Amino acid sequence: MQVLAVGAHPDDVELGCGATLLRHVARGDQVTILVLTAGQRGRLDGMSRQAEQQDAAARLGVELRWGGFTDGSIPDGPETITVIDEVVAATGAQILYTHATHDTHQDHRATATASVAAGRRLPTVLQFETPSSQHFEPTIYVDVAETIEDKLAALRSHLSQVLRQGPVDLEAIEAQARFRGFQGRLRYAEAFEAARLSWDLASPASVMAPALAFAATG
Amino acid sequence: MQVLAVGAHPDDVELGCGATLLRHVARGDQVTILVLTAGQRGRLDGMSRQAEQQDAAARLGVELRWGGFTDGSIPDGPETITVIDEVVAATGAQILYTHATHDTHQDHRATATASVAAGRRLPTVLQFETPSSQHFEPTIYVDVAETIEDKLAALRSHLSQVLRQGPVDLEAIEAQARFRGFQGRLRYAEAFEAARLSWDLASPASVMAPALAFAATG
Amino acid sequence: MQVLAVGAHPDDVELGCGATLLRHVARGDQVTILVLTAGQRGRLDGMSRQAEQQDAAARLGVELRWGGFTDGSIPDGPETITVIDEVVAATGAQILYTHATHDTHQDHRATATASVAAGRRLPTVLQFETPSSQHFEPTIYVDVAETIEDKLAALRSHLSQVLRQGPVDLEAIEAQARFRGFQGRLRYAEAFEAARLSWDLASPASVMAPALAFAATG
Amino acid sequence: MQVLAVGAHPDDVELGCGATLLRHVARGDQVTILVLTAGQRGRLDGMSRQAEQQDAAARLGVELRWGGFTDGSIPDGPETITVIDEVVAATGAQILYTHATHDTHQDHRATATASVAAGRRLPTVLQFETPSSQHFEPTIYVDVAETIEDKLAALRSHLSQVLRQGPVDLEAIEAQARFRGFQGRLRYAEAFEAARLSWDLASPASVMAPALAFAATG
Amino acid sequence: MQVLAVGAHPDDVELGCGATLLRHVARGDQVTILVLTAGQRGRLDGMSRQAEQQDAAARLGVELRWGGFTDGSIPDGPETITVIDEVVAATGAQILYTHATHDTHQDHRATATASVAAGRRLPTVLQFETPSSQHFEPTIYVDVAETIEDKLAALRSHLSQVLRQGPVDLEAIEAQARFRGFQGRLRYAEAFEAARLSWDLASPASVMAPALAFAATG
Amino acid sequence: MQVLAVGAHPDDVELGCGATLLRHVARGDQVTILVLTAGQRGRLDGMSRQAEQQDAAARLGVELRWGGFTDGSIPDGPETITVIDEVVAATGAQILYTHATHDTHQDHRATATASVAAGRRLPTVLQFETPSSQHFEPTIYVDVAETIEDKLAALRSHLSQVLRQGPVDLEAIEAQARFRGFQGRLRYAEAFEAARLSWDLASPASVMAPALAFAATG
Repeated sequence: MQVLAVGAHPDDVELGCGATLLRHVARGDQVTILVLTAGQRGRLDGMSRQAEQQDAAARLGVELRWGGFTDGSIPDGPETITVIDEVVAATGAQILYTHATHDTHQDHRATATASVAAGRRLPTVLQFETPSSQHFEPTIYVDVAETIEDKLAALRSHLSQVLRQGPVDLEAIEAQARFRGFQGRLRYAEAFEAARLSWDLASPASVMAPALAFAATG
Repeated sequence: MQVLAVGAHPDDVELGCGATLLRHVARGDQVTILVLTAGQRGRLDGMSRQAEQQDAAARLGVELRWGGFTDGSIPDGPETITVIDEVVAATGAQILYTHATHDTHQDHRATATASVAAGRRLPTVLQFETPSSQHFEPTIYVDVAETIEDKLAALRSHLSQVLRQGPVDLEAIEAQARFRGFQGRLRYAEAFEAARLSWDLASPASVMAPALAFAATG
Repeated sequence: MQVLAVGAHPDDVELGCGATLLRHVARGDQVTILVLTAGQRGRLDGMSRQAEQQDAAARLGVELRWGGFTDGSIPDGPETITVIDEVVAATGAQILYTHATHDTHQDHRATATASVAAGRRLPTVLQFETPSSQHFEPTIYVDVAETIEDKLAALRSHLSQVLRQGPVDLEAIEAQARFRGFQGRLRYAEAFEAARLSWDLASPASVMAPALAFAATG
Repeated sequence: MQVLAVGAHPDDVELGCGATLLRHVARGDQVTILVLTAGQRGRLDGMSRQAEQQDAAARLGVELRWGGFTDGSIPDGPETITVIDEVVAATGAQILYTHATHDTHQDHRATATASVAAGRRLPTVLQFETPSSQHFEPTIYVDVAETIEDKLAALRSHLSQVLRQGPVDLEAIEAQARFRGFQGRLRYAEAFEAARLSWDLASPASVMAPALAFAATG
Repeated sequence: MQVLAVGAHPDDVELGCGATLLRHVARGDQVTILVLTAGQRGRLDGMSRQAEQQDAAARLGVELRWGGFTDGSIPDGPETITVIDEVVAATGAQILYTHATHDTHQDHRATATASVAAGRRLPTVLQFETPSSQHFEPTIYVDVAETIEDKLAALRSHLSQVLRQGPVDLEAIEAQARFRGFQGRLRYAEAFEAARLSWDLASPASVMAPALAFAATG
Repeated sequence: MQVLAVGAHPDDVELGCGATLLRHVARGDQVTILVLTAGQRGRLDGMSRQAEQQDAAARLGVELRWGGFTDGSIPDGPETITVIDEVVAATGAQILYTHATHDTHQDHRATATASVAAGRRLPTVLQFETPSSQHFEPTIYVDVAETIEDKLAALRSHLSQVLRQGPVDLEAIEAQARFRGFQGRLRYAEAFEAARLSWDLASPASVMAPALAFAATG
């Protein structure tokens, strides 16, 4: 299957759904990530966020494409939709991951809006959270117990962001996966809102067995 | 895989997710339906809603269990949760289908509330709509083009309700599947809200290819 | 009474509220539709969407005005608000129909946003759904049993869109009216969200008698 | 037309929609109010809340019926639904007014829930606010400039509640009508959420002309 | 403490949180208001809205800064965020007040969006209502019984808006404070939605004693 | 100041707001916790959940009261409201903490509903999350960096629940505090929804300075 994940800046896709993409790769899906800007505003002296993103993509085992927009100024209209449309067409993507719609960062919002528009013909569009998400109410959980470590490793590729402390706070990211797992009755999970999920009941097994005994409080 | 669908009255499960259950049966899943009441208040003279439900279950190819509650008075607390708990345990269900939470019918609400509580350890709990649903905002769509006809056939088993005109309005049910399909980029679909869906990326293919070309308006 | 309906592209108004506008016309209201773009992006070779829209407006019996914006690039700010403001002033509209606010199509969103802003002084602003609406939760229903056929006829004027299959899928549109009627306790209905509805209790009869017996399930 | 308003305690209907009921009466509709309890818990020594309610009903010009439930303990299930069902049937009500669904007072919630269930066959069910409403988001506004004074007069009938200071704070009630009018582009308004409003476009004029010039800030 | 309030036009800050800012001033906080435009579109002949705003700021006892944007065309992206960022940095603001997110006025929306983005590092961001707010659901209430009169006085500084009747309707503003107080168990209140409120439990007393006895209806 | 926290079962209050209560205690507030049931259904052989709760209360430094209801069957109506009313009156509580309203556990829901009703006269009612919360959207954050360790220690008092693995998963609880801190621009936080928060601007400093530099991603 063909999978596309769209993020505003280098590291956004890894933060939002990196461990899920690793699950796709592990089962043989073709995964492409489209990063809309080069993240110029978050640069540290002498460090290339593009090189970091290339390194992270290599670690994930995914193809990397660039959108060519300016950090801080991603439009949410036809220019961006067209760029994503073309990647959807070129890759034949059937699943699209992107930012959640409510986010205080204008680039995240614009990316979400344009991606959901570009995904208008796709049966499945899932939206991930970021540290600046608002009103995020996930209902879809993916078990990432086997890939959380590799996600954290891929995030370390974004060394400039780790050094800036805040954007990529690895400890907080792991806590988030642990908390989302707790909510999803799993040990570690990435959580998503569904713009639309076409759930396939043609293939034999598409829901996982409960991986963790869970007992309600009280 | 083991699947459980819980409905308040005879016909509720078929109306809400009958065509989806037929998809489960077709791929070899074991499906049980738990009907909490015998639907006494909707009876027509001389017609047994229990016999109708047995006939519908046979047509669907699912096991039928009864909850033994009184039509109109399903409690939403521990009695009902315990009954559903026991069926979850007895069947080993991993997926639970039930009513959506917001519904003007008190039995539908109570069934939803108790089922979601009983499903607290399950990785996947999906909620279906009824004619009395309110604020239903589905995000999960199941392609039922191949099973919609058999769903309508199963609904005809509930002859007393078809004759009463209204509860089972077959034309409206088909229109609903067509409309939900339109929303879900499919021809016919049943639509669900997810209390929680644990999406399995271990098996090779769990999202369907786009079954229908869709072009945005404009 | 003066009624204004604003749509982004040729066919949007007919899809969203065509049968309701026919009801307005039937009772003697003056109805104007304002189409913000000529729908250039959805054109088929040799077919004029503007001519199609003129034909549809003639069938509906409404006045047609054009906004002059570019398909795909409707702004949601002052340019568009000003255009709609002028039509509101010129027609003396008291009721405004427009797109619903949440829609994956950027032009639909911009039209909704600008129309609601332009309607800031109006007592009634109602918002209709499109195939790309999201989170649409209608509470206002208009009985269109008598006008649904004429709505479908008006949609056939948009032949380029019918031929493209998807944008104007007449079978799905009829299913939608049947489904919305089912929700609204009517046979066929168009459904709306209210930005604001000033409900007149000065005139003798403004709510319809139940047109269809409805019995709750169960 | 037949109109029914259901409230939990004496004074609730007047507080929530008294001025709107006066508009119904003025245009010749038959209005019935159903008060589910005698308001025992809010009694002042020596004062009869039932007599107060009778006086208020007389001032409004509406028929008064009692539900016979216990203040503080209104059930939200079949007993209450049956009582309301019977009044709907006896009066032939086509419009139902009741409490909004989200309210911290258990009797208000139960009344809302049971009334919406009882109104399942009615084309129009509108829900009013109380001082204990939560998350109230009205979209329907009724102009009550002509009846607000008579509403306040009817509320003075509930002398025990006026004396208790709080439940019926006439100054706050007038401020509320002024504020809701401001939102609804009117001078004084009562505001409603619509569970479902079937908007009649058969009769000639059902939306009011703008009663007040309104200019947006800025 | 340093407090910043951001409004789109002259008078917006006073309307939304003027009485709350007076509370901040009274306890010794440093308050700055940032007005993004000069309100050109709402001008009356020969009256300067900038002079009015300076007068109002003087009455409130706050510092006034101007954003320099054009009335009607405030962008919601990086230009505006940068301007607000600079004032946040220059003032050392720890609390940010701004417009609520859902508002039919494009300038109000853009101001809200840009302010919330600019407040990304701040522990407390509160959002106020305007006459064009939509879906406003406040949960934070500030007691303004002692400052409501001075708020009204400050609003009178915006004489051009008072004369235009509508934008600054002092009677409606007082009714609003009375109604919000009623909701917040206070006599007069300004009400806020919290984008994020970091509630300090280090200092001895940060929640007020109930200022007004409140008795539930019924 | 007087503070009251209401939980359904032993350990619920500690899980939801234990670290916040420790902040109240540290600044000299009088804190009472009301536990509505003895948690009979979650008992391990030979272990007393009441003794565990007494131990936890002692560690927190708070007064403990019991509601006397049956685990699994807490009513949400007048019996429970009366019990909480009495504790509110006896303690003079001005702040009330309780469960969030949407929770799959019936006892949690009933406790939330009854507590919010009992808090109808209080200026501040805050609602905490549990592992079974749904749709929890916090906006209020309390910095608990200094008390998170003592919260975990208090939770260890509930040894039966720690041993049952699931109800009190200390690692997940710490991850949750870390994640909520990340959202609230703090290191560790407990997060709340506000039913109503009366924010005091009479005392000198009620919002904390930013404790942690935060940089937006990108």
